[in-house]
Amino acid sequence: MQTTLNVKGMTCGHCESAVKGALEEIKGVSKVKVHLDSGKVDVKYKEGKVSLEDMREAIEDQGYDVES
Amino acid sequence: MQTTLNVKGMTCGHCESAVKGALEEIKGVSKVKVHLDSGKVDVKYKEGKVSLEDMREAIEDQGYDVES
Repeated sequence: MQTTLNVKGMTCGHCESAVKGALEEIKGVSKVKVHLDSGKVDVKYKEGKVSLEDMREAIEDQGYDVES
Repeated sequence: MQTTLNVKGMTCGHCESAVKGALEEIKGVSKVKVHLDSGKVDVKYKEGKVSLEDMREAIEDQGYDVES
């Protein structure tokens, strides 16, 4: 499965690393690509193993907002 | 001694931490205050123990520019 999240507040490479790292730590997430300029984050994941809510929480824990 | 450096490119709290941490690691630097909005970084240091060039290098190593 693949989804694209809209994340607000990422401004620099550190932000990119924080979001990418938090998502990659989730079991079931296999690939993360952050587009800093647009705020879009592409995530490849195993359906049933991880929910969009898990991803949202991981990102918000880093201090960023996810647009629904 | 106290100086204020003008640092370009700091955009978020991670940037602030990166610059502050790099400066605080230098022997002779006793206090660092980063003003994200203005890009100004106040540094208290022991004269003779650390040079402005040392500070500039530490900041540039983190990927930011120091205006002279």
